[in-house]
Amino acid sequence: MLFDDLKSANADVWRAYTHHAFVEGMADGSLEEASFRHYLVQDYLFLIHFARAYALAIYKSRTLDEMRAGLDGVKAILDVEMGLHVQLCGQWGLTPEDIEGAPESRATLAYTRYVLETGLRGDLLDLHVALSPCVIGYAEIAERIAGPTGRTNDGNPYGIWINEYAGEAYQSLAADARTKLDTLAGGPVSSTRFDDLSRVFSQATRLEADFWQMGLDCAD
Amino acid sequence: MLFDDLKSANADVWRAYTHHAFVEGMADGSLEEASFRHYLVQDYLFLIHFARAYALAIYKSRTLDEMRAGLDGVKAILDVEMGLHVQLCGQWGLTPEDIEGAPESRATLAYTRYVLETGLRGDLLDLHVALSPCVIGYAEIAERIAGPTGRTNDGNPYGIWINEYAGEAYQSLAADARTKLDTLAGGPVSSTRFDDLSRVFSQATRLEADFWQMGLDCAD
Amino acid sequence: MLFDDLKSANADVWRAYTHHAFVEGMADGSLEEASFRHYLVQDYLFLIHFARAYALAIYKSRTLDEMRAGLDGVKAILDVEMGLHVQLCGQWGLTPEDIEGAPESRATLAYTRYVLETGLRGDLLDLHVALSPCVIGYAEIAERIAGPTGRTNDGNPYGIWINEYAGEAYQSLAADARTKLDTLAGGPVSSTRFDDLSRVFSQATRLEADFWQMGLDCAD
Amino acid sequence: MLFDDLKSANADVWRAYTHHAFVEGMADGSLEEASFRHYLVQDYLFLIHFARAYALAIYKSRTLDEMRAGLDGVKAILDVEMGLHVQLCGQWGLTPEDIEGAPESRATLAYTRYVLETGLRGDLLDLHVALSPCVIGYAEIAERIAGPTGRTNDGNPYGIWINEYAGEAYQSLAADARTKLDTLAGGPVSSTRFDDLSRVFSQATRLEADFWQMGLDCAD
Repeated sequence: MLFDDLKSANADVWRAYTHHAFVEGMADGSLEEASFRHYLVQDYLFLIHFARAYALAIYKSRTLDEMRAGLDGVKAILDVEMGLHVQLCGQWGLTPEDIEGAPESRATLAYTRYVLETGLRGDLLDLHVALSPCVIGYAEIAERIAGPTGRTNDGNPYGIWINEYAGEAYQSLAADARTKLDTLAGGPVSSTRFDDLSRVFSQATRLEADFWQMGLDCAD
Repeated sequence: MLFDDLKSANADVWRAYTHHAFVEGMADGSLEEASFRHYLVQDYLFLIHFARAYALAIYKSRTLDEMRAGLDGVKAILDVEMGLHVQLCGQWGLTPEDIEGAPESRATLAYTRYVLETGLRGDLLDLHVALSPCVIGYAEIAERIAGPTGRTNDGNPYGIWINEYAGEAYQSLAADARTKLDTLAGGPVSSTRFDDLSRVFSQATRLEADFWQMGLDCAD
Repeated sequence: MLFDDLKSANADVWRAYTHHAFVEGMADGSLEEASFRHYLVQDYLFLIHFARAYALAIYKSRTLDEMRAGLDGVKAILDVEMGLHVQLCGQWGLTPEDIEGAPESRATLAYTRYVLETGLRGDLLDLHVALSPCVIGYAEIAERIAGPTGRTNDGNPYGIWINEYAGEAYQSLAADARTKLDTLAGGPVSSTRFDDLSRVFSQATRLEADFWQMGLDCAD
Repeated sequence: MLFDDLKSANADVWRAYTHHAFVEGMADGSLEEASFRHYLVQDYLFLIHFARAYALAIYKSRTLDEMRAGLDGVKAILDVEMGLHVQLCGQWGLTPEDIEGAPESRATLAYTRYVLETGLRGDLLDLHVALSPCVIGYAEIAERIAGPTGRTNDGNPYGIWINEYAGEAYQSLAADARTKLDTLAGGPVSSTRFDDLSRVFSQATRLEADFWQMGLDCAD
């Protein structure tokens, strides 16, 4: 699969992202709450731009099926995930005002604009490769740290997050996203094309690691 | 309202569009069925690109409210209107295969790509001004030819089309679209800006009139 | 070569464009002068949007070499060709005011916006495929109608046009444009990708034929 | 002037950028050479994307004059500044290979993609406002630290940089850029529009300050 090739070609940066200290802190519950709260707020702002990225995917589509897939992405974010996010934030003592009024951190801005600009410069495959470290990476991270039995009752304060992304619904969504990359590629890609996509994948993965770091540091 | 100013500044081209022979033929029922069928098929292809235009509107939005409004537009087309359109086509003896396999006519291509390119070149207001002759013009046309009592039972074969766009739901949608132009403008626009928007409005209106003509001529 | 494959896959529409009555009228000198003048004026407006397309190519580039190639395209049009065009128009009795004040015809608008929107929706290869019927087609047309000895002294009023595009400088530019498509493709393309590119090529070629027809008909 | 209003509305972030420690270190010659070299290399990568931004400005233009202004920007960067930059780097012991092979730092990526994405999302004025902290800010910074008599002979190793941007040619270019913002606005802007532009200006200015910081820290 194209995704596996991209991961292999960027093994170090992928590991730095998927095994980031923020992730390990969620895994063993040692992550500072302030870091998680900071992350949650920025993740809300991030979602807004991810909805814009899926809207761009609709615009860039060449078939009705691709358009409907993009629409599912926008709906999932604007109609469902943002509401859930506000709820989750509430459980951590954050009001809607805390979230909506928060200034966008550098890491949020850098990653989201990189994804969007990559999608505008290139084609639909470029856009989905730029989205893949987030969409597919979260599934991989959560599955690993959930372990074979999940986190449902282990008292880890980050269990909700882990179980959400380790759950069947999200794992299935991520599996679809992997398949989609191959569908969009329409067959093996040339080495020039692979190098271009690998550069996009590498940058996007690095920017995702920066996003964890921003959470850890409560950085603006 | 900005929309009224645009209409006044382009009165001739607006009248040529809203009183086009195709429209008058629907009004008195004299339009050839073949012309209406040709129009219906192209209107389906048109909808696909209009969904792309609303997706572009989501991407270009600056607020969550604007994003949700764009999403409503994409949903309305992809989730509802395209299905209704296939039904309507069925009533006129057209199969889904007739519709989906049809080649895009010049008039469809010209109008849709003009709208999309205008939206990409300019901002969200440019995009909505390019969409307005369609969105708002259909409401104005249908209201006029429906007359004060509507067409429900007059035996006009085009009564379904007329009542659809003269109906409350569509009239309200068009009224919102008029208001939205002023909201997006955020106050009176400079004369340079008005001239630019007026040029967009004029071209888009002319391309809508060409769309009627394409139907009338069953042109490819 | 990719270009040859695209031509073979669209042989009929390619022949309709390259052997259009406007072309044959230039070849034997029988074309009405009014048609040529109408064409010249629209070709000037066309050049403005072609400069925008090359600017888009710079924006979409992934290497400095590609950027410089795009810049050469913009410079050639804005710094050289538009001036030559005004001169040529002058020889046919058209003043700069005639040219700059002319309204854009439907055919000009349809082709230019299709090229630009295709480039924005897809990637740099999509953009160059959309440009290729113009850039490469003109060279093929002129070479054929110039014949082995050229048109320099045969009294054909359209000899200047023919010799310009049959000349070594333009032929070499067109040969580069053919090579560039293969470079951008970076190897054989998948059948899905080829079908997409072929659709773009077919539409762009049809819109070029429409451009000749617009000249022939002095259509607005 | 619009630029002055934007500066006033963002006085703190503007001062943090224009009086950044990197700037003060150039002013008194105390800046570490390694920091300056790091900055020089990233500034080269930055220029590539700035050329793309001016290409985008050509694409977005509505008049030939605007297109020619954008072309001047692309030419200045690709035909002149990048060569000068390689020369300047050479004087600091950096080879062309050092420069071209360097990985893009986070700060370079964040600022350049923010500018480009802002230009694509909005219109030509949004794009130029996003460029203005760089284009106009460098002139303001250099003029201030050059002082009334310039730095020509004071032995400051950064005198070349300071005099370049404090020089008449660059100061005049920056003055034009200020005027251009008002021309593009076409008159007073609405308060909604001003708020949007002010947010763009604020973010772009903050990202410019981050660019200095990246140089200071030799950060990747």
